[in-house]
Amino acid sequence: MPRYKLTIEYDGTPFSGWQRQKDRMSVQQSLEEAIAGFSGETITTQAAGRTDAGVHALGQVAHFDLSKQWDPFRIREALNYHLRPHPIVVVESEAVPDTFEARFSATARHYEYRILNRRAPAAIERNQVWHVPKLLDAKRMHEAAQLILGHHDFTTFRSSECQANSPMRTLDAFEVSGDGEIIAITASARSFLHHQVRSMVGSLKLVGEGKWSPADFRAALDAADRTRCGAMAPASGLFLTGVDYP
Amino acid sequence: MPRYKLTIEYDGTPFSGWQRQKDRMSVQQSLEEAIAGFSGETITTQAAGRTDAGVHALGQVAHFDLSKQWDPFRIREALNYHLRPHPIVVVESEAVPDTFEARFSATARHYEYRILNRRAPAAIERNQVWHVPKLLDAKRMHEAAQLILGHHDFTTFRSSECQANSPMRTLDAFEVSGDGEIIAITASARSFLHHQVRSMVGSLKLVGEGKWSPADFRAALDAADRTRCGAMAPASGLFLTGVDYP
Repeated sequence: MPRYKLTIEYDGTPFSGWQRQKDRMSVQQSLEEAIAGFSGETITTQAAGRTDAGVHALGQVAHFDLSKQWDPFRIREALNYHLRPHPIVVVESEAVPDTFEARFSATARHYEYRILNRRAPAAIERNQVWHVPKLLDAKRMHEAAQLILGHHDFTTFRSSECQANSPMRTLDAFEVSGDGEIIAITASARSFLHHQVRSMVGSLKLVGEGKWSPADFRAALDAADRTRCGAMAPASGLFLTGVDYP
Repeated sequence: MPRYKLTIEYDGTPFSGWQRQKDRMSVQQSLEEAIAGFSGETITTQAAGRTDAGVHALGQVAHFDLSKQWDPFRIREALNYHLRPHPIVVVESEAVPDTFEARFSATARHYEYRILNRRAPAAIERNQVWHVPKLLDAKRMHEAAQLILGHHDFTTFRSSECQANSPMRTLDAFEVSGDGEIIAITASARSFLHHQVRSMVGSLKLVGEGKWSPADFRAALDAADRTRCGAMAPASGLFLTGVDYP
């Protein structure tokens, strides 16, 4: 069966997350209905990252198989037509070998977290930022972020519902940059634990406020204890920006 | 009576524009209701630029008078509380002398127009861009934009319903820059005619597509003839980014 790879952008606000749910609309269901809409085939898609409710994507990747051969350009056009009521867009579509797996072939995942750091809340980007009224020290947050790069037990920054077999992960990049009122935090790893980025960002905020030193942030990691994690950052500020493949 | 100046950000999508209308919600009405909400006073606000339906603002400026003296910081906090259901936010609030007029004291107005230039439509910024699928030449658009700087009769780029006494305006800056899929067009002038920015952008798009040369764009201006204007760009891509005062 021919296999197709999609690169997808979405506003996660109205969805229960990537994964199909019984009662609430998911990105996966919307996409699979759009695929059925043009192809007549009922299929299951697999995504690189199962984003949570309210989390956005600029470069989510998913794959699926169809019994018929299609021009990938036509697939993109047809999907964007059928997806129109939803804030989901297929940015790229390619034919790939059937050894390609959106989830298991991925060599890196990239996330960005956006904080609006000013007294006034957001108007236009209301659902795309975390509004933090108290002034944060982005340089100090960046300093702290550098202390947890590499291969560690990330239990502190892992949801109690995380289903991964191991809490060990390798954090390849974790950068904090402040540009005016927006603080952007980027994180890259081969894979992340459930709620890892939002947990790390929530704790970094404590550093930015001066409640924690960068050393406290590192000590929280070393404790490998979920109760040492700062309050988790909300979903609205998180974007899956891209996924790498060999 | 004490006078206050507000700097306001809003998502214009759900509004009939700045100005009060009988049947549809306007930014002005939402703001005046919020002012009444905290002060108990029914007042009229005056804005620097009466943005059209669907046009956004990052730095709209408005002024109003209250009979009572208020701490400007408290005005901002109270307004943001009362505005909460609407995508309108007061970014700054100041006490100003009663000679200050948001509209008439302004020395410059700055707009930005955003084009999403790629085949796939927008997902997240759906209401904040103009989606143009055909590849545009941003350099050539910039070249054309430079040809209409200065003091001219802008009749070609003026709505037939424009109520200004004169079609003469001085365009101080008009820049086109392409950054990946986003083409950003900025325009600055002491004041603009009704629909001037959207009319200029709509015509610049013809240059970007290669249908007009930069010289054709200048010739359209020189004709001082509304029928020579390209199809007007949609409201969704336009932002009032700031207003200058002496």
